[in-house]
Amino acid sequence: MKILIAPDSFKESLEALDVCHAIQSGFSQVFPDADYTLLPMADGGEGTSAVLSYVLGGRWKEVRVHDPLMRPITAKYLLLPDATAVIEIAQACGLHLLTVAERNPVIASSYGVGELIADALGEGSKRIIIGLGGSATNDAGLGMLTALGMTFHGANDNVLGQGGGELANLQRVDNTRFHADILNTVFEVACDVTNPLCGESGASAIFGPQKGACPQQVIDLDNALGHFATICNEHGYERCQEVAGAGAAGGLGYALMSFCRAQLKSGFDTVAEVANLSQHIADADLVITGEGKLDEQTAMGKVAGGISQLAKATHTPVIAICGSVDGLKPAQTTQFDVVMPSIQRIDSIDNVLSAAYHNIETTAVNIAAAMRLGQSVK
Amino acid sequence: MKILIAPDSFKESLEALDVCHAIQSGFSQVFPDADYTLLPMADGGEGTSAVLSYVLGGRWKEVRVHDPLMRPITAKYLLLPDATAVIEIAQACGLHLLTVAERNPVIASSYGVGELIADALGEGSKRIIIGLGGSATNDAGLGMLTALGMTFHGANDNVLGQGGGELANLQRVDNTRFHADILNTVFEVACDVTNPLCGESGASAIFGPQKGACPQQVIDLDNALGHFATICNEHGYERCQEVAGAGAAGGLGYALMSFCRAQLKSGFDTVAEVANLSQHIADADLVITGEGKLDEQTAMGKVAGGISQLAKATHTPVIAICGSVDGLKPAQTTQFDVVMPSIQRIDSIDNVLSAAYHNIETTAVNIAAAMRLGQSVK
Repeated sequence: MKILIAPDSFKESLEALDVCHAIQSGFSQVFPDADYTLLPMADGGEGTSAVLSYVLGGRWKEVRVHDPLMRPITAKYLLLPDATAVIEIAQACGLHLLTVAERNPVIASSYGVGELIADALGEGSKRIIIGLGGSATNDAGLGMLTALGMTFHGANDNVLGQGGGELANLQRVDNTRFHADILNTVFEVACDVTNPLCGESGASAIFGPQKGACPQQVIDLDNALGHFATICNEHGYERCQEVAGAGAAGGLGYALMSFCRAQLKSGFDTVAEVANLSQHIADADLVITGEGKLDEQTAMGKVAGGISQLAKATHTPVIAICGSVDGLKPAQTTQFDVVMPSIQRIDSIDNVLSAAYHNIETTAVNIAAAMRLGQSVK
Repeated sequence: MKILIAPDSFKESLEALDVCHAIQSGFSQVFPDADYTLLPMADGGEGTSAVLSYVLGGRWKEVRVHDPLMRPITAKYLLLPDATAVIEIAQACGLHLLTVAERNPVIASSYGVGELIADALGEGSKRIIIGLGGSATNDAGLGMLTALGMTFHGANDNVLGQGGGELANLQRVDNTRFHADILNTVFEVACDVTNPLCGESGASAIFGPQKGACPQQVIDLDNALGHFATICNEHGYERCQEVAGAGAAGGLGYALMSFCRAQLKSGFDTVAEVANLSQHIADADLVITGEGKLDEQTAMGKVAGGISQLAKATHTPVIAICGSVDGLKPAQTTQFDVVMPSIQRIDSIDNVLSAAYHNIETTAVNIAAAMRLGQSVK
């Protein structure tokens, strides 16, 4: 029996690889001779490159870049063996790099993201996978594009400074020094946000406040993003500010689409493709996935739901082991063959989270035991 | 596939029969053609006669008797088709019949229990099953025996009054009017308490306070019980005050053993025997039991643990569906083939308890689905 174990991480409790180990440890107590493949998954958010590193190998590269306030920091990204780089933008412009007092999207810059991309291009990358998410910036990629050689001019043809506030001053776009490899490189952007660049569901209105923008700044930033995109359009750059995801990561989605011809895909689809998940599923007799929480609101869980859809194509059965399950219909009416929460007893959230490994392992043992029972009882 | 569903009630949330229905509802979604037998179980405590009524039929009889303070009340007991009566003593002398202010084991009497027994004898019962538990009394069965015709004399040969306090006055025992059918009747007493009649682990010391005895009364009651038993011994009644269970129900255990030649058995063993559980297990391909809480302290749950022991004899696999599981080893190292808690998410105790039916049903669906998966995946 070939068993593919492909869970997401359990948020706030267990990394995806640890979830794999817990499930394998439980299942192999009942089926010691099964052939197990561990394929930790991610949804394109935090931890995605760590998962791809485990699955595909490659090497980490550390680079000195600039943080959102243009201070030097060390950021790392992953170079896969097939000339693909995996960059999580939060490494260079993440909100977690700033104290609460430092948060200010008027001045915060995505410059470091451009530096990471430039480094990856220097390493010969032909494909760059970018995980959007967790940015401190609202600069429509002004910083990133500047680091990649674009020049943005304002009044008196002065070159613009950094930060979302500067966008309002744009008058002229100069691409003569834009990095020559950009348009020969495939950009795949993992993005689960569907916001447009501007407007009431745009980057500034929806994500600005958590990045430190006060109400007046939200209005100003929104106008600035719109002005910037309009001027870029006038210089021949594709009008994609209304495309779903243009507003991701403070407009980095827009900049990657418009200037780098990036494709935006869901985080899970991106990871699944890079990790060759479909082939792994096709090779398996049984898939076991997992997710911290499964409910109808989260579309059954990004990873678990995505895996069950892929498994449909090959009629491969799927078991989901979860932290908690809320509001699902019984298993056979859903997309999973078995859905089992792993909470063993009523307890505090902290205790349940810290017992995750044991609970997942125990649940795996008992699911496997029920399967074995099914083989013997007629 | 013959499936026996034999769970305990889930305390504070679901009657045993409702647990049966939840499990059957879940399993039959996956195995609609299986042959299901529902056998709700009990551990000899509250609800035992209701379970036996469902399992074996029979009729309820209501009788006017006296409550612990000798006030008239209506109590009911069960008459099974095979000339067996099932009496829960709490119906006649239960602590729940008194307000907190009324609790007083110095005067509380088990008289009503004797009235129920007399009524059952009048109905032709050849076997009387008595569930001890929940009594308000500490009278060593003085009231019960009096209602059955015994006469207990004190100073000046006066007949004793009711209540544990009167025991201290006993001087002479007269059995000339003791109910003639008693010694032709089999008394089986369901009792999970192992306390002796007297001493520091006796009825008065351990259970007296919760029945309303103050510390001095505990001492007096303990001495009174000891005096009563000694005088009875002198009149030829068997010395069984040290036997485990003699102190159950304020000494009713002692009285039933000494005067009625009762056998004390664990509640589960009593119910299992009456319900013919062993035969049901032998006829089944699979047993599903359930218990609100399984842990090592409660000996794996009285009902679930007992069922798994019986099933060992016929090598019948046993699945346990629980409210919560605490501190057990993985399934295959314990006495169950599968142990699955049914909590679906982190929630308040009240919400978890009120979701019991749904949670049990959902868990049953998924265990059955895993069994079916075991049949199809190689």
